[in-house]
Amino acid sequence: MNSQLPAPLQQQMAELLGDGWLSDDAARRQYGQDNSRRYALADAVALPRNIEQVQAIVRACRQHRVAIVARGSGTSSTGAAIPYQGGIVLSFERMTRIVALAAADRYAIVEAGLINAQLQQAAGEHGLFWAPDPASADVSTIGGNLACNAGGPRAVKYGTSRDNVLGLTAVTGSGEVIRCGSLTSKDATGYDLTHLLVGSEGTLALIVEATLKLLPVAPHRASLRALFVDVGSAAAAVARLMAQPVPPSMLEFMDRACIRLAREVGGADIADAGALLMVEVDGDQATLAHSLQAVSQAVRGDGLLSLETAPDEASREQLWAARRQLSPALRTIANGKINEDVVVPVSRIPALVAGVEALAAEFDLPIVAFGHAGNGNLHVNILFDPEDAAQTARAQAALPRLFALTLSLHGTLSGEHGIGVAKREFMADAFSAATLDSMRAIKQALDPDGILNPGKVLPA
Amino acid sequence: MNSQLPAPLQQQMAELLGDGWLSDDAARRQYGQDNSRRYALADAVALPRNIEQVQAIVRACRQHRVAIVARGSGTSSTGAAIPYQGGIVLSFERMTRIVALAAADRYAIVEAGLINAQLQQAAGEHGLFWAPDPASADVSTIGGNLACNAGGPRAVKYGTSRDNVLGLTAVTGSGEVIRCGSLTSKDATGYDLTHLLVGSEGTLALIVEATLKLLPVAPHRASLRALFVDVGSAAAAVARLMAQPVPPSMLEFMDRACIRLAREVGGADIADAGALLMVEVDGDQATLAHSLQAVSQAVRGDGLLSLETAPDEASREQLWAARRQLSPALRTIANGKINEDVVVPVSRIPALVAGVEALAAEFDLPIVAFGHAGNGNLHVNILFDPEDAAQTARAQAALPRLFALTLSLHGTLSGEHGIGVAKREFMADAFSAATLDSMRAIKQALDPDGILNPGKVLPA
Repeated sequence: MNSQLPAPLQQQMAELLGDGWLSDDAARRQYGQDNSRRYALADAVALPRNIEQVQAIVRACRQHRVAIVARGSGTSSTGAAIPYQGGIVLSFERMTRIVALAAADRYAIVEAGLINAQLQQAAGEHGLFWAPDPASADVSTIGGNLACNAGGPRAVKYGTSRDNVLGLTAVTGSGEVIRCGSLTSKDATGYDLTHLLVGSEGTLALIVEATLKLLPVAPHRASLRALFVDVGSAAAAVARLMAQPVPPSMLEFMDRACIRLAREVGGADIADAGALLMVEVDGDQATLAHSLQAVSQAVRGDGLLSLETAPDEASREQLWAARRQLSPALRTIANGKINEDVVVPVSRIPALVAGVEALAAEFDLPIVAFGHAGNGNLHVNILFDPEDAAQTARAQAALPRLFALTLSLHGTLSGEHGIGVAKREFMADAFSAATLDSMRAIKQALDPDGILNPGKVLPA
Repeated sequence: MNSQLPAPLQQQMAELLGDGWLSDDAARRQYGQDNSRRYALADAVALPRNIEQVQAIVRACRQHRVAIVARGSGTSSTGAAIPYQGGIVLSFERMTRIVALAAADRYAIVEAGLINAQLQQAAGEHGLFWAPDPASADVSTIGGNLACNAGGPRAVKYGTSRDNVLGLTAVTGSGEVIRCGSLTSKDATGYDLTHLLVGSEGTLALIVEATLKLLPVAPHRASLRALFVDVGSAAAAVARLMAQPVPPSMLEFMDRACIRLAREVGGADIADAGALLMVEVDGDQATLAHSLQAVSQAVRGDGLLSLETAPDEASREQLWAARRQLSPALRTIANGKINEDVVVPVSRIPALVAGVEALAAEFDLPIVAFGHAGNGNLHVNILFDPEDAAQTARAQAALPRLFALTLSLHGTLSGEHGIGVAKREFMADAFSAATLDSMRAIKQALDPDGILNPGKVLPA
C-alpha cells in the first residue's frame, strides 16, 4: 500500500471533489481519530456527494494501491475508523439524504451519512421507527451503525442493525457498484450479500445507501426494577422472562459493583443488592398493564429482593435513573475505561460476572458489568487511571483474560461494537483457522487488492 | 466436471460409507428427482453419518472434480436438488440428531437432516418453537429449510429461516469445516458467513449442523376472516395491519379466483368477493381478545364487505377452512401447476394481482394469487394441463412475464422457495451484472472448483 498519495491521484481527487477534498494538516488529524481514543494520520480526506464520486474514489485508489477508510461520525470504540495505513478517509457526512420513506411499505432508503436520530425523527412522523438504538444514536450514522452491526437496549425485542436492513447499495473494493437485497421483508433470491456486508466494518465494500426495515411505534411503555440477592437469581429471572410470550422491549442488567457506584457516586436512590434488572414492555394502553404483570410474574422467583413497577412515563423516568446515573458515575471514578461488549448465553451470565469479579480482584482494578441481559450482551468495563502506568498495564493485561473467559463460556467477542483493531488478534481464538481462511477468501473476492480499511477485523 | 465417477473415487467412497454408498440404478433414479417434477440421473448417492464423512466426501470429490448435490427431503420446487451434472447426491437422512436443546438459552443445535416437525415437537416440550413453518414442515429438513431460506405463514411475525439461525457448521467446496456465528442472539464478531450460507442452496458450502434460535410458544390464538370488494381495499387493510403495533402471527391473502375455487370446487362456505384476508393473532388468554380487536379495527376501512372473527380454536378451524380447501381445489381443476413465490412491497399487491389477471386473460389459463400478504409474498399459481402441449407452452410463456411484472413493481423473484434451476436465468433481470459478478466471486472464494450444486442459483 502506498504510504503517501501519488500526485496524479491527488490531482484527480481535487478535480473530482472540489471543496470535498481536504489535505490540510488539521483535516488529516481531525479525521484520523475516533471514539476509541486511537489515532493515525490520514493522507487526505474525501467528502463525496454521491455514489458516482464514491465509485470514482475507490477506482482511483485501487489503481494507485491507496487505502480507503470509510467513516461515519467516528463513534467506533474499536478503532475501526482509524487510518493506520494512511491513505484516504472517506467520510459520508455530505451524503445524508432520506431518498425514500415508504410508510405503507415500512421501509426507508437512506444515504450512509444520515444520522440515526434524524431517521428516527422522520420515521416517527409516520408512527414508525428503525430498531437500532445505540447510545451514540444522536450522532452516529446509519452507515456506521450498519458497518459495525450496532444494537442497543431495544435489540432484545426488535433486533440489531443486521436484523433490520433489507438491502444495500455499496461499492466493492474492486470499484463495482452492487445493489443487493430488496425492498421486501422476505427474500430468497440469490446470495445474501446484504447481511454479509453488515458488520464487515468497511473492509469488503463501502455501504453508500441502505434500505431499512421500519417498525410501528408502540405508543406506551411500562417498566419494572428488580433487585436480586445475587447474579444467579437475576440470570434465572432473565431466562424466565425470555421464555414467556411477552417480549421485553428492554432487559438491562447491573452487577453489584454497578449498583454501588450508581448509589454512592451517582446518587441513585437504590438499595444494595447482588444484581439489578430493569425490564421494559411496550404496547398500547389496553394491554400494557397485562404485559407489565406478565413480566413481573416472570421476574418473581428465588433470590428476588424487591420489585418496583412504573406503569407510566413519569414513574418510568424515576426508575431508570439508577441506570442512567451509572455512566457518569463510571467517568467520575476513573478517567480510563476499556468498554467491552462481550456476549454469552443467558445461562452463563452468572459465570461471566463471577469471572469478572475474580479478574477485578486479581488485577486490583474496578471491573464492572452491565447491559443487555436478554441477549446475554454485557458491557464489561475495566476502569483505570490512564496517567498511572501500572494501572494501565494491568487493565491491558486483564483484557485478553476477559475474552478467554467469554470464549470459555461459549460466548462471542462482540455483540454490537464490532472488532476493529481492538479485538482483531482475538479473532484467532474465536474462530478456527479454516473459518478465518474462508473470511479471508471472501475479503479477497470483494476487495482483491486489500484497499478497504486494511488491518481491521481479520487477524494478521 | 467428470460425468462418470472415477473408479478410485467409487472405491474410496464405498470403503468410507459402507451401506451409506448407493450406486444401484434404483437409488440413482430415486435421488435424482425432487418436488419440482424435474429429474436427472445421479452417478451415486452418499448417506454420511457425521461431519468427518461429509468432509471426506467433499475432499474426494474436489480431487476428482465430481459434482456434489446436497439433499434434504427433496421438497424443493425449483429443482435445487436435481443432479443435472451427475456426480454424487449427498443426502443428510442419516444425520438427524438434536445435538443440544438449551431451553434456558433458547437455542437448539441440530444436524442438517432433522425433519422440521421433529424439531418442533422436541422444542414444544419446552414451550418453544422454531419459526419457519413451510407447508412441507412434516417432511422437509432443517438443512433444506436453511438452504432455500424457507418461510411460511408465520414469518410475518417471527421471520424466515435466515432470521432464525444463530450459527452454522458447514463444509465449504474447498473441503474445509467452518464454524460461523455463535450461540447468542447478538453477534458483531467478524464476517457474517451464517446468513450468507442460508439461501445459497448448497452452492457455497454444505450445511452440516445448525444452531437455531428458538422462540416461546404463544399459547393461544384468534383469527378473523375479511372479505373485500377488491384487491386494492384488501392491500390497504394489509398496510394498516402492518403499521399498528399488534403484529399478526399470520396474514394470508386470496384473490377473487381463489375465493371462487375454494367455494365452487373446494366446497367452502364463503361468499363471492374481490379479495380475502385471513388474519391471526397469538398471545396469552389475557390479551388475545384485545389483540383481535386491534387487528379487527385495522382491517375495517373502505371496501370491506364482511368481517368474521374466531376468538377460539374451534371457531378458528371453521374460518380457516376456505384457505385449507384452496390447495386441493387447485389440484382438482388442473394437474399442472407452476407455483411461484414472488414478493412485492405491500402497496404493490393490487398492481401485481391486476397484472396476474391480465396474464390469465392473455394466456387463457387460470392464474391465481394467494399467500403471505403481510410480507407481500404471493404464491402465483399458473394452472395448466401438462398433457396439453399448447396449454403447457402458454404456461411456460406466462412465467417470464410474471417475473418481469414482479420486477417492474420493485419486487423480487423469490420469497421462500429459492432460485434453483427454475429461476436462475431470471437472476440477470433481478440483479446488475456487477452484483452477479460479486456473487460469482463469493462462489469462487468458497467453492473454487465449482463442485457444489453446479448450475444452480447463478445464471450461466
